[in-house]
Amino acid sequence: MKNMILIGVWMLVIQSQSGLFAQHAPVSDHEVVEALVSEAISSQIAYRQLEWLCKNTAGRICGTPEAAAAVEYTFQVMKGMGLDSVWLQEVPVKSWRRGEPERAMIVSARTGNHPLAVSALGWTPATGEAGMSAPVVEVRSMEELNQLKDSEVQGAVVFFNQPMDPASFNTFSAYGKAAFQRTAGPSAASKRGAVACMVRSLNPETDDHPHTGITRFEEGVIPIPAVAVSTRGADLLSAMLKTDPGLRVWIRTTSVVGEEMISYNVIGEIRGSQHPEKIITVGGHLDAWESGEGAHDDGGGCIQSIEVLRLFKTLGIRPVHTIRAVMFMDEEVAQRGGQVYAAEASRKGEQHIAALESDRGVLRPLAMGISVDAEKMKSLASWSALYEPYQIDLVQGGGGVDIGPLRNYYPGIVFMGLIPDDQRYFRYHHAETDVFEAVDRREMQLGAAAMAILIYLFDQNPF
Amino acid sequence: MKNMILIGVWMLVIQSQSGLFAQHAPVSDHEVVEALVSEAISSQIAYRQLEWLCKNTAGRICGTPEAAAAVEYTFQVMKGMGLDSVWLQEVPVKSWRRGEPERAMIVSARTGNHPLAVSALGWTPATGEAGMSAPVVEVRSMEELNQLKDSEVQGAVVFFNQPMDPASFNTFSAYGKAAFQRTAGPSAASKRGAVACMVRSLNPETDDHPHTGITRFEEGVIPIPAVAVSTRGADLLSAMLKTDPGLRVWIRTTSVVGEEMISYNVIGEIRGSQHPEKIITVGGHLDAWESGEGAHDDGGGCIQSIEVLRLFKTLGIRPVHTIRAVMFMDEEVAQRGGQVYAAEASRKGEQHIAALESDRGVLRPLAMGISVDAEKMKSLASWSALYEPYQIDLVQGGGGVDIGPLRNYYPGIVFMGLIPDDQRYFRYHHAETDVFEAVDRREMQLGAAAMAILIYLFDQNPF
Repeated sequence: MKNMILIGVWMLVIQSQSGLFAQHAPVSDHEVVEALVSEAISSQIAYRQLEWLCKNTAGRICGTPEAAAAVEYTFQVMKGMGLDSVWLQEVPVKSWRRGEPERAMIVSARTGNHPLAVSALGWTPATGEAGMSAPVVEVRSMEELNQLKDSEVQGAVVFFNQPMDPASFNTFSAYGKAAFQRTAGPSAASKRGAVACMVRSLNPETDDHPHTGITRFEEGVIPIPAVAVSTRGADLLSAMLKTDPGLRVWIRTTSVVGEEMISYNVIGEIRGSQHPEKIITVGGHLDAWESGEGAHDDGGGCIQSIEVLRLFKTLGIRPVHTIRAVMFMDEEVAQRGGQVYAAEASRKGEQHIAALESDRGVLRPLAMGISVDAEKMKSLASWSALYEPYQIDLVQGGGGVDIGPLRNYYPGIVFMGLIPDDQRYFRYHHAETDVFEAVDRREMQLGAAAMAILIYLFDQNPF
Repeated sequence: MKNMILIGVWMLVIQSQSGLFAQHAPVSDHEVVEALVSEAISSQIAYRQLEWLCKNTAGRICGTPEAAAAVEYTFQVMKGMGLDSVWLQEVPVKSWRRGEPERAMIVSARTGNHPLAVSALGWTPATGEAGMSAPVVEVRSMEELNQLKDSEVQGAVVFFNQPMDPASFNTFSAYGKAAFQRTAGPSAASKRGAVACMVRSLNPETDDHPHTGITRFEEGVIPIPAVAVSTRGADLLSAMLKTDPGLRVWIRTTSVVGEEMISYNVIGEIRGSQHPEKIITVGGHLDAWESGEGAHDDGGGCIQSIEVLRLFKTLGIRPVHTIRAVMFMDEEVAQRGGQVYAAEASRKGEQHIAALESDRGVLRPLAMGISVDAEKMKSLASWSALYEPYQIDLVQGGGGVDIGPLRNYYPGIVFMGLIPDDQRYFRYHHAETDVFEAVDRREMQLGAAAMAILIYLFDQNPF
């Protein structure tokens, strides 16, 4: 590892004589960075918070009692931290209940019957108690669907079976290329007269776990039952269709779309010592798909955001600007938490100078992204050098679904993002595998430290 | 990510018209690197080999039937790959059997009795069937042991309880600072008259898994029973000693030190097309502690080494020099596999130009190390650029316990090493947690690709 370059020495404003820095100000950025990393990776606090959230509020998709429990828990955690303010912000959401565990079966006189592991896509209607059975037509793209004759699609289950490219190093890019099946496939199938839709799980591994997610029906299109099938199940169905093109699948879902109701963003802040009116937001989303525990997506990102505030408090760092941790509600469905947060900020005349989102899993951080141009990036070489001992890069980029709406009101806002390694991420994403045990304490905490470092540096020297 | 720089175009020697490169030579280094990564991360072959090794030869510390099975399995795997040669190289080893699961108990009239999770250190003698019970004296360093009175140590169990620093970002460095307790603690305790030794597990996490390993008794010192205790057990014992300094621990181990016997290094090679007499070695060690399955330490490193040869074969890359995969025996105990390999190479007049070792876990690769000076490193900027899209650095360093002895005979040999992220490694190291399920397929395979890339580049352009 190369030597670090110290870029400046700051007088920290010491908070009530406490904290590691109370004894020997001034401290260098290098010292602050080292202290943030050491405190983060040796602490158990955030990891135990994540455990509680995962084990006691699993199933916290918006509109559920579990989501309400997650709101209450993170509110209480932040209340207990001695922050300057902690509050709830109302977010209207529409509820949905998955109902009984979904079932599906390949039904074929020629090859025998075989169960399939499936999971209803969010906010899709139920098949009804008895389930439904129909022939299957397999496609890999919208083009293939469009080329089918009406007689082939009408009354059938359209089966989208385009794998996420396992040979793509960038798993988010592979996800982006295959996600159309889940987000737009059921709507397109319904438009052509299909009675249901089955979508290959967006998972580069071959296993038995269905990966759910939201789907959207276009205006005027009748919603139809739609399920994700595990990658192994999709391979099996595809192989059996070759042997018996006339086979049928039986699907049973009992989901219920509910009413509009009120949920909340949970917000806590440390007020800035010099510019309390200028706000830096750090957040993740509190809602999570109910098949797993929402550990990586995105309970971990929420807890990391709280941990940023805890690191500041524990080390006695009083920020220049106001630092606000936000647990956004409803990212997985309609992203109303992020929209409400930005609109309310504008309505109240708040000044937002930066926002950081963690919603790519809480795996080993490889980089921090920051939304600056190439020229500005060069001027941040000293910040890069501070990250280098931890094998974390500082790269152009940043933003996210929940902080994104802030830019509508604050065009100059600086967006930042945690960029963890993504090789493992999609084996957990929206699946029953996304549990507390899939999170490594040190990886999550190194991410929290990386987030705190960037917020600290920006807070001391904003642009 | 920055753009890649293509450093040259090579004519690949095509192997029997097969392989991805048969159709369109010449190919650029950039194309080869991309093909190596894509093939590696999308293949299941090596992962299934690791599963077989872990599930069928767990307990393969040298001298055991499980070690013999691992020799046979990897020999058969390489035999089935169509390599140019596959053979066994005799390695004399000394066997040891752990016996029945170890037991230990805190015995205290004041605080009650509490079981401790322990694991005998390798090659230590047994307590005997009835076990032994003795008072405990806790120390954190050799200095503290030295300062104790004879009366405090004689007849006691010396309890080394210096934690691996959880706040150290570099876990290998934290391990290095705490490892003296396990490697030299029991010998020092015996010298002072202790009847047994208990060592805090070398694990930065607080949990219930003992982490074993080898210990060495100095010449003339009587070996005594010695066990690793889980970090949580060590914390408990330390706390109870404060309440009841007169408590005793009871320890029962039934290990048996066996006889000298013959085991093997397993070796397979692809002969070089232009310089078959010059050899590049890539290897890991086949023996593994018996508490887990030796997935990260170091079954994964062995399978990655085989995978390097498979990648060359599958992509139709015929190397200029001979590439040899070696599964070394006996790394965990006396490192005789590496010593034999180097001595035999010299005796036969072989020319060894480079060697790469993977023995730091098969986690997400962050860097490849290469043993060159700073000046030479600068000239490898084009190689660094080829790694950059994968967020893998090329850094100075390289070497390892098994390839190390080669330098005694080949002073100019270039050493290389896989450097994975080490945040998670020591929760698995030498413990029952080091199982197949703790290995992520893509992380392991990205490591194999990173190894193959460096061997490919060096093979094409050695120095």
